[in-house]
Amino acid sequence: MRNLTLLTDLYELTMGQGYFNEGRHEEIAVFDVFFRPHDLITYSVAAGMEQVAEYLENLHFSEDDLAYLRSLGCFSEDFLAYLAALRFTGDVTAVREGEIVFPYEPILSVKAPMIQAQLVETAILTFVNHQTLIATKAAKIVDAAGGGVMEFGLRRAQGADAGIYGARAAMIGGCVGTSNVYAGKLFSIPVSGTMAHSWVMNFESELEAFRAYARSFPDNCLLLVDTYDTLRSGVPHAIEVFKELRAAGHEPKGIRLDSGDLAYLSKKARKMLDAAGFENAVICASGDLDEYSISSLKEQGAKIDSWGVGTKLITSADLPALGGVYKLAAVFENGREIPKIKLSDTTEKITNPGEKEVYRIYDESGMAAADYIVRKGETVDEGSPLELFHPVETWKRMTLERFHARNLREPLVEGGKAVREKLPLSAHAERFRAEKAKFWEEYTRRDLPHIYKVDLSPALHALKTEMVRRGKGN
Amino acid sequence: MRNLTLLTDLYELTMGQGYFNEGRHEEIAVFDVFFRPHDLITYSVAAGMEQVAEYLENLHFSEDDLAYLRSLGCFSEDFLAYLAALRFTGDVTAVREGEIVFPYEPILSVKAPMIQAQLVETAILTFVNHQTLIATKAAKIVDAAGGGVMEFGLRRAQGADAGIYGARAAMIGGCVGTSNVYAGKLFSIPVSGTMAHSWVMNFESELEAFRAYARSFPDNCLLLVDTYDTLRSGVPHAIEVFKELRAAGHEPKGIRLDSGDLAYLSKKARKMLDAAGFENAVICASGDLDEYSISSLKEQGAKIDSWGVGTKLITSADLPALGGVYKLAAVFENGREIPKIKLSDTTEKITNPGEKEVYRIYDESGMAAADYIVRKGETVDEGSPLELFHPVETWKRMTLERFHARNLREPLVEGGKAVREKLPLSAHAERFRAEKAKFWEEYTRRDLPHIYKVDLSPALHALKTEMVRRGKGN
Repeated sequence: MRNLTLLTDLYELTMGQGYFNEGRHEEIAVFDVFFRPHDLITYSVAAGMEQVAEYLENLHFSEDDLAYLRSLGCFSEDFLAYLAALRFTGDVTAVREGEIVFPYEPILSVKAPMIQAQLVETAILTFVNHQTLIATKAAKIVDAAGGGVMEFGLRRAQGADAGIYGARAAMIGGCVGTSNVYAGKLFSIPVSGTMAHSWVMNFESELEAFRAYARSFPDNCLLLVDTYDTLRSGVPHAIEVFKELRAAGHEPKGIRLDSGDLAYLSKKARKMLDAAGFENAVICASGDLDEYSISSLKEQGAKIDSWGVGTKLITSADLPALGGVYKLAAVFENGREIPKIKLSDTTEKITNPGEKEVYRIYDESGMAAADYIVRKGETVDEGSPLELFHPVETWKRMTLERFHARNLREPLVEGGKAVREKLPLSAHAERFRAEKAKFWEEYTRRDLPHIYKVDLSPALHALKTEMVRRGKGN
Repeated sequence: MRNLTLLTDLYELTMGQGYFNEGRHEEIAVFDVFFRPHDLITYSVAAGMEQVAEYLENLHFSEDDLAYLRSLGCFSEDFLAYLAALRFTGDVTAVREGEIVFPYEPILSVKAPMIQAQLVETAILTFVNHQTLIATKAAKIVDAAGGGVMEFGLRRAQGADAGIYGARAAMIGGCVGTSNVYAGKLFSIPVSGTMAHSWVMNFESELEAFRAYARSFPDNCLLLVDTYDTLRSGVPHAIEVFKELRAAGHEPKGIRLDSGDLAYLSKKARKMLDAAGFENAVICASGDLDEYSISSLKEQGAKIDSWGVGTKLITSADLPALGGVYKLAAVFENGREIPKIKLSDTTEKITNPGEKEVYRIYDESGMAAADYIVRKGETVDEGSPLELFHPVETWKRMTLERFHARNLREPLVEGGKAVREKLPLSAHAERFRAEKAKFWEEYTRRDLPHIYKVDLSPALHALKTEMVRRGKGN
């Protein structure tokens, strides 16, 4: 495992030196990770928590790391000695991977000695921002396609990790496989792939290229038909080879279209395949796809069975970063919580102070009605009616007589030890799938969705209002 | 070093099995990496070659990798045994890092046994696409700022590698430092960083937070002044602490603005600092910056000395992937070159066949006049006039009487061994800076630039035209 302890912004360490000098480095602090809203995000699919837990459990400065920090000339020897022995000893509470989450909710909270909590900010944000981004994009694309989406983006990913962990996140968002062999091995993801244009160019003729491939993969023969001319050359040659395969007792897999007018070509190719008796041969499409082009192709009646989605999935091209932040919520003095708040002229940028929990409120029919952020220790009594109100426009109110409340967060790390069982990706994907079924489509649709409510408990709202009124951070 | 041998698309391996079965896996092939044009790209800054060389030199399948491939059930035992012994034995020719490059130019070519050349496609594209993308984005941002740009994006990067190698690429594009400590150590990049809002929130008052920081860093005191109210609280408190510092014999560094109207705030803060006698205190700005917002701030007369650029740099937010491709250019039969071409109905998608070299043609004044792609082995005679013509609109012609021609590419890997001296990043950054000075600003400006010519030699043009006429791939 790579030692990523230095994967942090320098200011985490300069602040560490400062707290160390002030004798405040072991005061307990609580930081929350949450997202700010964005027009392109209806809901997010949380991911990356497994990497956070691994990173925290493995946190330690090597001799080499310390020598490098010493070379910067801004750290004291006693501080470096302290870092040499430093391990992460705190607690992390977080939503499960695959959980549907919304802006402002603390999806992950770190409670740890100040110096540790500060040091781990950057890497936690990197892992959670990235994987949540890609899981969310995958969910949008899978939603448009209705399934059958393969992640094909490694060559356009922003570095190796973006490809590897992007493939992981894409599976949580509902993809069915990846082209990325490294990710396939690391996370037991189904891998797929057949041939590139270079294969076809490398034989005397397209027909000979197809025959050669069929010789090697008679039972898994999926042919790329657009190297020269899809309808006049590619599909007829594929059908010729499919007939030879069938005569030899093998059933062909299908074809892949990688360019051109995919709606037109897929409809024509479908007819040609059907007419030749290959109704079961699938048509895969690839080439610059995303949720918008897939929606459009489906509206045009494209006959496409599976989708290879690359660049725009693996980079989340229309929104290549989530604005996940890590904000101080509380410090503890002699075990007593001192809530903290970040003020701002922009109301939406004011943070929610104190230690918190997040509940999802389901109505009588079992559908999600709202998320509900409470102060830690508050109970949500399912026996009494629950009044929800908008955190800013407080006159907007709704009362639920009967409901079920589920705490969205569970321990991830306790006393520095990862405490969650490592589940297969399919379990996270299934969690997402099952939870999404509990949301009215009005809340999850891509275009002009209803805004799902994320409300505060009266106690949290009162605390926040009082702190804003006082006008300073504590 | 991580073994990234499996960092490949599955189809590279299925094609490998196919070539192996056909007995053609050791035929020599040449593949070119080049970019297609994009409206947002005036020129690109090549980067990532060092990682390509490391990866190729280290290429080998571990026992574990082979066990995984066996488990997929689509590879033969004799093929897996062949992979077990496989190393990269080919040659790679590439531009240097920091070189300015344009669409269609083969910036990197691989000449290797077919199975190797195919296997390494994906990872080479991942490294070169990513780092060239970020170096190019950094160049645009640095161009707008006129210097003083620090890379601050790790927390929004698409995974750890995106942050680490993104910081590396940003330095090649002209950034002066990074917040990323891991990248700082790995590539000897200057690191910078001071404090977050959480530091300020964590003291009884902003003034006390600033004083505490000044106690720890009296000679490197840069204060974040926007936690509560920049002009009424942050800057006055900073000035108070700066005076205390100066009285104690220390000169303060400056302030950082991270939100609000940076033009207005920086002008007001500058006046306040100057009036208090801190004319040398710098003003750093950060917060959702990119080349467009920086240009706008400068036009408004913002008094900003240095720029911390995060999300939009590290993700290249308006164009998060370069469409770099890897296309078959030739195969060799008994040492004889068989040029290969990828045809397409879209003229711009037709590839340039055969082994090639790329020359940059400088005019008498030493300024870049055009790039000139030739067949390998062609010489460019500086003693005779050179006639350049547009590769499609061939009636557009220009003759240079006197010129200098420089081969843009040099060996990167020979016989599987990395042959380039590993240079400090500053050498690549300097190569870019020096070369950019040889381009008229009309060619490199961001908005509506003149299109720099990338022309073909008559011999290459004739080969291409003939192959297109024949209408198949060879």
